Amino acid sequence: MILFLSDFGLAGPYVGQVHAVLARWAPGTAVIDLMHDLPPFRPIGAGHLLAALHRSLVARGVDGTVYLAVVDPGVGTDRAPLVVEASGARFVGPDNGLLSAIAAAEGARAWRIDWRPDALSDSFHGRDLFAPVAAMLARGEPVPHTDIALSQLSHADAVASLAEVIYIDRFGNVMSGIDAAELPRDAVLEASGQRFRRARTFGEVPPGTGFWYANSLGLVEIAVNQGSAAALFGLVVGKPVSVAG
Amino acid sequence: MILFLSDFGLAGPYVGQVHAVLARWAPGTAVIDLMHDLPPFRPIGAGHLLAALHRSLVARGVDGTVYLAVVDPGVGTDRAPLVVEASGARFVGPDNGLLSAIAAAEGARAWRIDWRPDALSDSFHGRDLFAPVAAMLARGEPVPHTDIALSQLSHADAVASLAEVIYIDRFGNVMSGIDAAELPRDAVLEASGQRFRRARTFGEVPPGTGFWYANSLGLVEIAVNQGSAAALFGLVVGKPVSVAG
Amino acid sequence: MILFLSDFGLAGPYVGQVHAVLARWAPGTAVIDLMHDLPPFRPIGAGHLLAALHRSLVARGVDGTVYLAVVDPGVGTDRAPLVVEASGARFVGPDNGLLSAIAAAEGARAWRIDWRPDALSDSFHGRDLFAPVAAMLARGEPVPHTDIALSQLSHADAVASLAEVIYIDRFGNVMSGIDAAELPRDAVLEASGQRFRRARTFGEVPPGTGFWYANSLGLVEIAVNQGSAAALFGLVVGKPVSVAG
Repeated sequence: MILFLSDFGLAGPYVGQVHAVLARWAPGTAVIDLMHDLPPFRPIGAGHLLAALHRSLVARGVDGTVYLAVVDPGVGTDRAPLVVEASGARFVGPDNGLLSAIAAAEGARAWRIDWRPDALSDSFHGRDLFAPVAAMLARGEPVPHTDIALSQLSHADAVASLAEVIYIDRFGNVMSGIDAAELPRDAVLEASGQRFRRARTFGEVPPGTGFWYANSLGLVEIAVNQGSAAALFGLVVGKPVSVAG
Repeated sequence: MILFLSDFGLAGPYVGQVHAVLARWAPGTAVIDLMHDLPPFRPIGAGHLLAALHRSLVARGVDGTVYLAVVDPGVGTDRAPLVVEASGARFVGPDNGLLSAIAAAEGARAWRIDWRPDALSDSFHGRDLFAPVAAMLARGEPVPHTDIALSQLSHADAVASLAEVIYIDRFGNVMSGIDAAELPRDAVLEASGQRFRRARTFGEVPPGTGFWYANSLGLVEIAVNQGSAAALFGLVVGKPVSVAG
Repeated sequence: MILFLSDFGLAGPYVGQVHAVLARWAPGTAVIDLMHDLPPFRPIGAGHLLAALHRSLVARGVDGTVYLAVVDPGVGTDRAPLVVEASGARFVGPDNGLLSAIAAAEGARAWRIDWRPDALSDSFHGRDLFAPVAAMLARGEPVPHTDIALSQLSHADAVASLAEVIYIDRFGNVMSGIDAAELPRDAVLEASGQRFRRARTFGEVPPGTGFWYANSLGLVEIAVNQGSAAALFGLVVGKPVSVAG
């Protein structure tokens, strides 16, 4: 199974071309669109969302998969294409921090991809390079590569938790990169000068009140019952979220 | 074949995680996204759209399928998870009215799902509970359950037609829950204090004029040639649509 | 493999129903959504985007495919349903100019589809007629048809390049129907009274400056570094783009 996520958006011919190339290189392999609205220009935060998605899916028996992950503002520069092997899965993407949270897992290994396609555009390595590599991995075919030390990765200092906003959903719920399992239930969070206490469900707090809860990915999420936490508290992707006590 | 429809929206990682779980539990089964912009908080109306979709697809030879249907504002409360078997298909979803139009079909049967997954989140039963059950049904595997009488279903009084707005498309065309086959061709409809006569196509009426027609699902739809019926007549999901004569 | 593109949009139950019918008629065939935001009412320009997508995919080994292409403002009128065979692929769609750029390829052949389904709605031939035909072609089944001369096609005068805006992406980048391989690198383009010189990447020009480049489909695209070319220069689908020198 190939799990595909990117910042391409669903509009336009981008996601579709990647699927066509995957179907050509790995016919019969299931290809799942995990999401295509990862925040562009924020590969490190997107990498924490990827890591949380992977943890949630492994807990539900989805393992042994290949992830094709593309948030690639540096496409066309000399950032390297990468494979990271970690927690029973392989992750294909650019070396720009997107795979750093994954690489922080125990026993992770990384390779630089040396394979290049015949037709490589300047602006669409997702279709031309990363997709064929993901397909080769899914089929168990060898991919020319060079092993590299994890310390050589871009943003090799990434850790399991990221104390900032990493994604905002269409309802204005604000996802942080903080693993909820690491927080005591009575933790108070601070973001945008506001304090947030924990609730189990939206129904537990009065309408218009902000709170935090462990979302379905196991991440700390700031929300408002019947409102948009992003709008109400001026929260955008990249803003710090800290533990106040 | 599993047909998946919900109110999750296409943004974010929600639809994708359900697909990953379905691919894990029912590898090789075709999974089709029917739609993911069902109106949230309106399970009864959404159920009429589901019933119309099913009728249209059966008329085109698509039968014997499993529907995974999730509009679930009560997730985390004690509403039961349900399977309804009707008109040659099986429908998995919450007991909140979403499956009531389906259950109104002759010969329908309902079961309460007793199976529970190891990892059940508070807020995402679509991924954790309904998807694995749909996969088990598609593979012909037994699902622990309790038969229940149709009269025990939430909103068991649902009938085949619903005289209100159930969906508005991106052009502002207004779908009602009324089966067009039940209306005489000279029926006049009333909604928002306006009256609408039937036309066969958009081209039959002058630009800016409202009319009704039998849409491609067989439902009565109110539209405006070169305009938005929703905007022009202030129609929103839930507004009554009645037969004036 | 069936590659499906349309102007249906991703909202609503339209794309999904087509998939359900394809899965019914051609079980086991891979069906890829190429894009569903082709500009409506502009079949000729959409046809140039289709032709560029096909060229790009063939260059990446994706061939022998069936394209299901639907931009069909004349649905319900007497425009014919068509198959065009060209450059190793088959294209199913309405005879309204959408397949004319494809039919301009050397060795192209066209047929009028004579097959009709039992259930044919007035407004959704994508689901009822074109999808079953695409499925029959993908399975190698015969489709009742009449050979027609290319000169009989609607807009048979289409050529390989179209000097106008054919698509605008969500960032405001403006795709023309001009094949970039036909232009010298020092060509200057003119659109909306503005002149544009070529750059290889966005980073080569100062923020706010317009330029043209060969996009990942091989088409001439007008863009602005850190801005929307569409908004800045008032460019919309259909506007002329000419070579100034």
